[in-house]
Amino acid sequence: MNGLNDDPMAPQTFLYGCVLEAGKEVVFNPDDDELEHQLDLRMACVDPSTKDELHMVEVEGQDAEGQKVKAALVSLKPSTLPSVCLGGFTITPPTVFRLKTGSGPVHISGQHLVMMEAGQSFDDDEDDEEEE
Amino acid sequence: MNGLNDDPMAPQTFLYGCVLEAGKEVVFNPDDDELEHQLDLRMACVDPSTKDELHMVEVEGQDAEGQKVKAALVSLKPSTLPSVCLGGFTITPPTVFRLKTGSGPVHISGQHLVMMEAGQSFDDDEDDEEEE
Amino acid sequence: MNGLNDDPMAPQTFLYGCVLEAGKEVVFNPDDDELEHQLDLRMACVDPSTKDELHMVEVEGQDAEGQKVKAALVSLKPSTLPSVCLGGFTITPPTVFRLKTGSGPVHISGQHLVMMEAGQSFDDDEDDEEEE
Amino acid sequence: MNGLNDDPMAPQTFLYGCVLEAGKEVVFNPDDDELEHQLDLRMACVDPSTKDELHMVEVEGQDAEGQKVKAALVSLKPSTLPSVCLGGFTITPPTVFRLKTGSGPVHISGQHLVMMEAGQSFDDDEDDEEEE
Amino acid sequence: MNGLNDDPMAPQTFLYGCVLEAGKEVVFNPDDDELEHQLDLRMACVDPSTKDELHMVEVEGQDAEGQKVKAALVSLKPSTLPSVCLGGFTITPPTVFRLKTGSGPVHISGQHLVMMEAGQSFDDDEDDEEEE
Repeated sequence: MNGLNDDPMAPQTFLYGCVLEAGKEVVFNPDDDELEHQLDLRMACVDPSTKDELHMVEVEGQDAEGQKVKAALVSLKPSTLPSVCLGGFTITPPTVFRLKTGSGPVHISGQHLVMMEAGQSFDDDEDDEEEE
Repeated sequence: MNGLNDDPMAPQTFLYGCVLEAGKEVVFNPDDDELEHQLDLRMACVDPSTKDELHMVEVEGQDAEGQKVKAALVSLKPSTLPSVCLGGFTITPPTVFRLKTGSGPVHISGQHLVMMEAGQSFDDDEDDEEEE
Repeated sequence: MNGLNDDPMAPQTFLYGCVLEAGKEVVFNPDDDELEHQLDLRMACVDPSTKDELHMVEVEGQDAEGQKVKAALVSLKPSTLPSVCLGGFTITPPTVFRLKTGSGPVHISGQHLVMMEAGQSFDDDEDDEEEE
Repeated sequence: MNGLNDDPMAPQTFLYGCVLEAGKEVVFNPDDDELEHQLDLRMACVDPSTKDELHMVEVEGQDAEGQKVKAALVSLKPSTLPSVCLGGFTITPPTVFRLKTGSGPVHISGQHLVMMEAGQSFDDDEDDEEEE
Repeated sequence: MNGLNDDPMAPQTFLYGCVLEAGKEVVFNPDDDELEHQLDLRMACVDPSTKDELHMVEVEGQDAEGQKVKAALVSLKPSTLPSVCLGGFTITPPTVFRLKTGSGPVHISGQHLVMMEAGQSFDDDEDDEEEE
C-alpha cells in the first residue's frame, strides 16, 4: 500500500501495430518530455490482400553519430514467406517505417515500452504526493 | 523451509495455449485483483485440418494512451509456412485473439506469467506473519 | 577460494533432447525434492526418415489454476519446414510431449536448467562443509 | 536534472544497417578509445534486385585466443528464404562482413550498442563535476 | 583507472564458427582450468556447395545426471530451408557437433562466452597487480 516495492524504472508494456502501404510512411515519435519510449519489434506479416511480390520494409532512425540512417528491416513475399519473427528488434524514436518496395499492405507489430528517463522521477513536475 | 530466499516478485510460469477458429474470439483477461498476469507468446501453428489459405491472427490490446488497438500478430498458410516462432511477444491483458482471415484452426502457445503487482506483497490480505 | 562469489541460485545448464513418434509419449518430470527443474525448448526438427506429412507436436502441462492443459507447440512438414526455432519456450515440469498428428520421428531439443528452489540451499540436507 | 539516477553502464541503442555486395567488404570498427561498442544483429534480407542464387554472408572477428576467425552468418535465396531473423547475434568489433557467395545485395540490420568500458566513467577526461 | 567498476563475472564475447562435413566431428572443449566457457549458438546454414538433401546436425553433451546425451539440433535442406536461427541455444562444454545425415557442408555460428568460474577471481594464480 505504500509502494515500497515500486520500481519507477520498470517499463510498462503496450501493444504496437502499424500497417505499411506504398507511399505511406508511419512515424513513431511520441511527443513526450518526461517518459522514455522504445519499440521492441516482434513480427512482420502480410495479409490476403497483399500482392504476391517482394515487399521490403525500411526503417529510418539515428546512428551513433546522431545522423539519420536507413536500414532494411525485413523482406516478405506472400507465396514464399508470409510472416517473419523480428526477434525483439529494439527501435529508439524518432523512427519512420516505410515500404521500400512492394505495394503492401505489410503489418508490423510489437511492444511499445514506456519508462522513466534516467535522472527523472514520476513526480518531477507534479505536486501531488505520490502514494500508491 | 523458512522462505528466506523467496523473491515475491519472481514470476511463476504456466503453459498457455488457445485455438482460433473463424468467428470465435479468445479472450485473455484473468479476473484477479492481486496478481499481475502476462502472456509471453512463443509459437503459432496450423494443424492438418487447417484449410490451405492464408490465416492472419489479430491481437487486440491497449496502446500507451489506454485506447483499444489492434495489431496483426502472424500470418500462416499450411503449404507455405505451417509454424512461426513468435519470439516471446509480451502481451498485457486484457487482450483478445481472433482470426482476421482464414477459417482455422490456428494454434497459439506460450507462457502465462503470474507475478506480484508492484506495491503489493503476497500477504496484503492475509493475516499470517511473513517477514521479509 | 572461499566461494564468496558463489550464487547458489544460478541455474546449471544441461543438454536436453527427445524423439517423438506416433503413440509414444515423452514425459519430463524429474524426481527431485530439492532442486528446481525447467526446460528451455530451442529447436524442433525432422530427420530423413520422417514421412512427408504435417506433424503437430502437443505439449501438456499445468495452467495457472493447476489444471492440466494442452497446447500445440509446433507443426513441421519435411518438404515445407524441416526445422523451427522454438525461441526458448520455457516449460515447467511435470510435462508430456506427444505427436498429435503424424507418425514421426520429430526431434525436440533445448536446455535443461537445474537450480535451487527458493528457500533452500545446497547444504540443507548435507553435512559437509561447503568449501569450493 | 542532476542525473542522480543515471546508470553510466547502461548501453545506448542506435540503428545499424549495411548492404553487402560481391567484392565489397563492410567493416565495423568504431574509432573510439573511451566507449565500448557492440552490434546485436537482428535481421538479414534480400531486395527485389537480388539475383536468385544462394547468398552466404561471412562475418570475420576474433576468437578467444585473439586470432582472426571467420564464420558463416546466414544464407539467403530470394525464391526460397528472402529474410531470416538473426536473433540478436552479438558481434564485438573489429568485425568485417562480406558476401562469401552470391552477387547481392544482401541487407543486414540490427542495433549498435554504445556503453562505458568497465573501469571508466563518462568524466574520465572531462573536467565537469558529475557526482553520482 | 583503478578498475572499480570492473565486473569480473561479466562474460567476454568472441565469435565462434565451425563447418560440419560427413564423417568429421567438431569438438568444443576448451582446455582451461580457470575460466568457464559456453557457446550461445545463433545460426546454422548451408552454402552453394551443399548437396540438396536433408542434413541433420547432432549435438552431444551431458545431461543432468552427467551422462552423455545426444540431441538433434537442426535439419537443413538447401532448396527448402538454407538457414535457421538457433535462437541462442546454450551449450556447456565438452560438446561434439556432427552431421547425423547428409554430406555437408553445414555451417554453425554463434558466440563463445568466457567468464570467471564462480568462486574464482582473475588473480587467483597470478602475481601481477591487476591494474587496468
